[in-house]
Amino acid sequence: MVHLDADPSLLGFASLSIHADDFLSKTSDIAPAIHVSTTYSQPDPDQQPADGNGLIYSRYSTATRDRVELVLGTLNKGYAVTYSSGLSSGFAALLHIRPNRIAIGGGYHGTHGFIEVYKRHRDIAIIDLDAELQKGDLVWLESPLNPTGEVYDILAYTERAHKVGATVLVDSTFAPPPLTWAIELGADIVQHSATKYFAGHSDALGGVLVVKSEKEADLLRSDRNVLGSVLGSLEAWLLLRSLRTLKLRVTHQSQTTASLVAWLNQASDGKAHDGIPANAIYAVKHASIQKVKWDIQRQYPGGFGATFSVLLTSKTAAQRLPFRLKLFHAATSLGGVESLAEWRYQYDPEIDDRLVRVSVGLEELDDLKQDWRQALSDV
Amino acid sequence: MVHLDADPSLLGFASLSIHADDFLSKTSDIAPAIHVSTTYSQPDPDQQPADGNGLIYSRYSTATRDRVELVLGTLNKGYAVTYSSGLSSGFAALLHIRPNRIAIGGGYHGTHGFIEVYKRHRDIAIIDLDAELQKGDLVWLESPLNPTGEVYDILAYTERAHKVGATVLVDSTFAPPPLTWAIELGADIVQHSATKYFAGHSDALGGVLVVKSEKEADLLRSDRNVLGSVLGSLEAWLLLRSLRTLKLRVTHQSQTTASLVAWLNQASDGKAHDGIPANAIYAVKHASIQKVKWDIQRQYPGGFGATFSVLLTSKTAAQRLPFRLKLFHAATSLGGVESLAEWRYQYDPEIDDRLVRVSVGLEELDDLKQDWRQALSDV
Amino acid sequence: MVHLDADPSLLGFASLSIHADDFLSKTSDIAPAIHVSTTYSQPDPDQQPADGNGLIYSRYSTATRDRVELVLGTLNKGYAVTYSSGLSSGFAALLHIRPNRIAIGGGYHGTHGFIEVYKRHRDIAIIDLDAELQKGDLVWLESPLNPTGEVYDILAYTERAHKVGATVLVDSTFAPPPLTWAIELGADIVQHSATKYFAGHSDALGGVLVVKSEKEADLLRSDRNVLGSVLGSLEAWLLLRSLRTLKLRVTHQSQTTASLVAWLNQASDGKAHDGIPANAIYAVKHASIQKVKWDIQRQYPGGFGATFSVLLTSKTAAQRLPFRLKLFHAATSLGGVESLAEWRYQYDPEIDDRLVRVSVGLEELDDLKQDWRQALSDV
Amino acid sequence: MVHLDADPSLLGFASLSIHADDFLSKTSDIAPAIHVSTTYSQPDPDQQPADGNGLIYSRYSTATRDRVELVLGTLNKGYAVTYSSGLSSGFAALLHIRPNRIAIGGGYHGTHGFIEVYKRHRDIAIIDLDAELQKGDLVWLESPLNPTGEVYDILAYTERAHKVGATVLVDSTFAPPPLTWAIELGADIVQHSATKYFAGHSDALGGVLVVKSEKEADLLRSDRNVLGSVLGSLEAWLLLRSLRTLKLRVTHQSQTTASLVAWLNQASDGKAHDGIPANAIYAVKHASIQKVKWDIQRQYPGGFGATFSVLLTSKTAAQRLPFRLKLFHAATSLGGVESLAEWRYQYDPEIDDRLVRVSVGLEELDDLKQDWRQALSDV
Repeated sequence: MVHLDADPSLLGFASLSIHADDFLSKTSDIAPAIHVSTTYSQPDPDQQPADGNGLIYSRYSTATRDRVELVLGTLNKGYAVTYSSGLSSGFAALLHIRPNRIAIGGGYHGTHGFIEVYKRHRDIAIIDLDAELQKGDLVWLESPLNPTGEVYDILAYTERAHKVGATVLVDSTFAPPPLTWAIELGADIVQHSATKYFAGHSDALGGVLVVKSEKEADLLRSDRNVLGSVLGSLEAWLLLRSLRTLKLRVTHQSQTTASLVAWLNQASDGKAHDGIPANAIYAVKHASIQKVKWDIQRQYPGGFGATFSVLLTSKTAAQRLPFRLKLFHAATSLGGVESLAEWRYQYDPEIDDRLVRVSVGLEELDDLKQDWRQALSDV
Repeated sequence: MVHLDADPSLLGFASLSIHADDFLSKTSDIAPAIHVSTTYSQPDPDQQPADGNGLIYSRYSTATRDRVELVLGTLNKGYAVTYSSGLSSGFAALLHIRPNRIAIGGGYHGTHGFIEVYKRHRDIAIIDLDAELQKGDLVWLESPLNPTGEVYDILAYTERAHKVGATVLVDSTFAPPPLTWAIELGADIVQHSATKYFAGHSDALGGVLVVKSEKEADLLRSDRNVLGSVLGSLEAWLLLRSLRTLKLRVTHQSQTTASLVAWLNQASDGKAHDGIPANAIYAVKHASIQKVKWDIQRQYPGGFGATFSVLLTSKTAAQRLPFRLKLFHAATSLGGVESLAEWRYQYDPEIDDRLVRVSVGLEELDDLKQDWRQALSDV
Repeated sequence: MVHLDADPSLLGFASLSIHADDFLSKTSDIAPAIHVSTTYSQPDPDQQPADGNGLIYSRYSTATRDRVELVLGTLNKGYAVTYSSGLSSGFAALLHIRPNRIAIGGGYHGTHGFIEVYKRHRDIAIIDLDAELQKGDLVWLESPLNPTGEVYDILAYTERAHKVGATVLVDSTFAPPPLTWAIELGADIVQHSATKYFAGHSDALGGVLVVKSEKEADLLRSDRNVLGSVLGSLEAWLLLRSLRTLKLRVTHQSQTTASLVAWLNQASDGKAHDGIPANAIYAVKHASIQKVKWDIQRQYPGGFGATFSVLLTSKTAAQRLPFRLKLFHAATSLGGVESLAEWRYQYDPEIDDRLVRVSVGLEELDDLKQDWRQALSDV
Repeated sequence: MVHLDADPSLLGFASLSIHADDFLSKTSDIAPAIHVSTTYSQPDPDQQPADGNGLIYSRYSTATRDRVELVLGTLNKGYAVTYSSGLSSGFAALLHIRPNRIAIGGGYHGTHGFIEVYKRHRDIAIIDLDAELQKGDLVWLESPLNPTGEVYDILAYTERAHKVGATVLVDSTFAPPPLTWAIELGADIVQHSATKYFAGHSDALGGVLVVKSEKEADLLRSDRNVLGSVLGSLEAWLLLRSLRTLKLRVTHQSQTTASLVAWLNQASDGKAHDGIPANAIYAVKHASIQKVKWDIQRQYPGGFGATFSVLLTSKTAAQRLPFRLKLFHAATSLGGVESLAEWRYQYDPEIDDRLVRVSVGLEELDDLKQDWRQALSDV
């Protein structure tokens, strides 16, 4: 079995994604087993100390979950705690932080959904993301933002919040490591829907919180133990399997996306471009073409993610486009190996009805371009 | 494919456990597939109405979860909503009910755990289970009670509560259908840790709430959708697989338990009995030998479950017994095919330190008796 | 962890089905993990002897397969080797035995299928099951026989064969332990499609050979290692999970079947009976109503299995019946928790075209009867 | 749902690996379900033609297996049939081809193993790979060759064989598409252990044969149906999941390997090099540094695979090295995301006892180099 006695900080990202959990393996299996047991035989106190894997009940911890949390923590440069879904991790963060007020912009409607449930039980104020902050506030910063894929200046938000003693949670779902490390940009807590890039194959729900100390992670686990919102056994295993290819997938998807976005954006002036019909595209939104005054590259050194938005020139066109594309499924979600497109307005009436949210998978760039050419000619 | 056009009420319990979900099958697979997709292709609005399975995102619903909830609802004579664990279902019930006060006795410490988390956010009173009730109160009735396996007069509690407009939740984990149907005894909401008898093989965490209307179930699902505490994909599938054998398993385990309890209880007078050493057993606790003044058989027509407690004559003996038994694993949990025994005091210092909680599996009664004989002679 | 130091022969069937593999567990998981690794880290020869689970490559052995083979061997009173399917186990037996001639009757057409493939490579004679035998012959005895569920006098066949040095393989798929133990009736090798009663939920293919010595099992494993026809990882795990409930399931299905068969058979005189229309049933075939001159009970002490055949009074009726039944899926296979019925002629033109093969699951007897009443009135 | 009406030949490799099976999807699931059913409900002949997925019994075909075979066939530019393991696919090829003689070199010992089993039943001659051929001969060409990773001139072998009417099977396990397409180089049949690069995560056994016509694939399936050596249900699903990332993984592993091989080879002159100690490496073997007189790049346009061999300067050093490396598990097999190293002599005494076979995973090149530096200094 591999024993990493070297400082993990000496290993590169891809190596850590494959080996950070090696020393937790208790069997000779190279590929981890799918542990499903809900309970574990206890060590006999009359015997010599047993193996001591410390497992008692699967709601507390499992061998797979311990491994996936170690890998996720290492890759995120913090301490990771997993949940049954992105939303359950967000709700757990809210229960943990117990803020007086929440400063939040638009972004994912699910987040606003659990905040509403919370407010049924404790009446707290929701303030504007850029409102003046006080001690006890929570800044909920989703960056890149759903659905545009545009980013915030995380450093500016964390600096401003920390001056008054406010807490900053960054929802980094759209740009996981190795694209960015929000914890290094000052976030107190980082949240991801692991369903997206981490799991990356559209086959496992999950959420993760990343905090700065083992002690804080243990507080989260203590809550989770009674809240019971734990990752499923197959989800945990699929997530671990997926992390082995995380860098390859996300980097590649991100590069393809930047190329596709740049190409589509050339047609946003209303003129035909390289097979894209004239007057098909009104605008393209993505961090890779976002105009900002701060050093965007420094905060997103690995790329800007594989989700972007296209505004077409009519509601009808936007509604149809997902069904005209052939290499993009008309489906919600993002981060998977297969490209997806959806007319976002149907789920969230606050979104421009000409907007199509696009998630780019691992298909060849040329094939995706050709698909857009034919689809835009047919909406 | 089987289409049950007959009134489900015309079919017996075992038949329903196998066929209640038949009509939800959308493929020709006889055994349901393990659906893992987190997202689903949407119907093209320009096309004829598609299949219309209505699946959008797996946090809302999945084919497997829909099936398992239909079977669980049918078997429980209500409408079932599933969760990632028993505790997450309990917590969801609490958020849903939003009680002013909670009347609760001892029972499972996990329940008290999430109530504590809740109280960090909304200060509500915890009152005695038998305290006088008011409108807006929630009676949290765990019956059979952990760890003794003794039962409450559910009818009396629901009648008393409903007189003043209080709500009654029955945690029926220790005695699922076809042992009892708490909903028929007046419970407003029934909660189960599906991890136990429903899943029944110690390999899947899950929780379930049963309510009296589809409308209320939909409210729970609406909350669950933003709380994100959903059953894992493999857990859902294993649970469905397990329900096919529910009646056989639970009825058999319950019968073996009643026999074992009666046999052990004969030695609780301190005298040796049929190979049980003298002065080994101080007391045995289980609904099957419980003395009550109400019609216990009427409320538990199918039996009393397969979890009971034995009080030995010393703390040391109780601590050791689980490790002397050979057909019982020394492990927490209950309801599985394999017998378990645990010294409960280690997790819950409110429990008598001479108490061993026992869960009886599907082993042969004679083998279990013989195992107790040798173990009690060796502690 | 449980250590069975007692003689396994001292434990009952159900106890063994749950605990025979306990001592093979290398972790504290109560429910076995789903091991998927194809390779295993090797012990460092410079270190102290490691755990020594002896796993090298998953085609040779896996933790799950070792466990399921130990349980299957114990329950079958021999040594079990598993395969990817019933047919691959049969083919492996043929390669292992290398007979000069095969004495075989009708039975499952798949068996005849692989014998044909074999004959393309080595020309051996197929003789009648009751032909005179010689040394080097293989008697392939399928009992109960597909599709009728009628049985052979195994003792008579093994006695006759052994007199001349012939080998007897019994395909016991239709009546696994605890219904009968063909190895105790003189079979040299016993074959099962584990897909049927052993797996029992219509969700896992598998085959098993049972032989009389570990040495012979090792020869089979040595062949299997290069033939590569190994059980899938999920199949192995599901099979192990299913064996925990084997006795309950098979015994119950067998009893329901005997009752249903007797009831249907009362209408085989052409007269209406208890709701069965007149002239609906021509004949019923099953060992439970089979007329024999030998002690059938002695050879099948646990029952006769849950598969039988009904001959209707016309081909059309037989073809339709599976689609008129509502609690029986119109599907091939048998042994699962859900009842199945199929018009066997479509797969095997040697079968009477009025014959419907029926597999009885775990539904309630009364519901099954009612289903036959309505279906027979509608064909 | 995506419908690829465009000619698949118009799409790139990565796009096909994700979408070739789209049209086989019968549900709205984006990520395929894990189908486990062994049997399927049949269409009622009295009804309108049903969905017609044609599934009858899972030994014949399953939804997942159909999809994975379509993707594998497309990526291999032929028609693919899957098996339970690489060896069972090889054995199936042998039964299918029924050669008079087999021309074969060294290579994987497992192949020689099933040929031995076959020879127990039909005595055929094994001739040298370069012996003169006749009609009816089978040339079994393993390229790249186990364990060196060196390649043969496939074009030369297929040309020579076809002149006399001999058949050529290429075992292309060590270099799957998109590294090479043996079928384009004249192979009549191509065999892969799908366990290796195709599955790619060391968690699924499988084998695949690729032939040039659907008709021949159907003959193989017809045999497989009675041989029963079918891919497990989870293996099929994991294989399909893995194919989505095939190009990224294999291309990256292959590039890292070529770099590592070149770097190690610089120290094979006995001198220290870039941290590699002097006299540590005797020789390095891999197609990327192989000297040949034919156009090796033309036959392996995508790279040479991620398995190579290092000969150290002593048996002891070779035996120890796998245990001194920290980012390589000491384990057999290859093609997975994690690097492996093994002293091959222990399994195959025909191999030089100084040889270590190495499989390179997805770790960072610099980390792997550093690992070799420290390990070679410590053996």
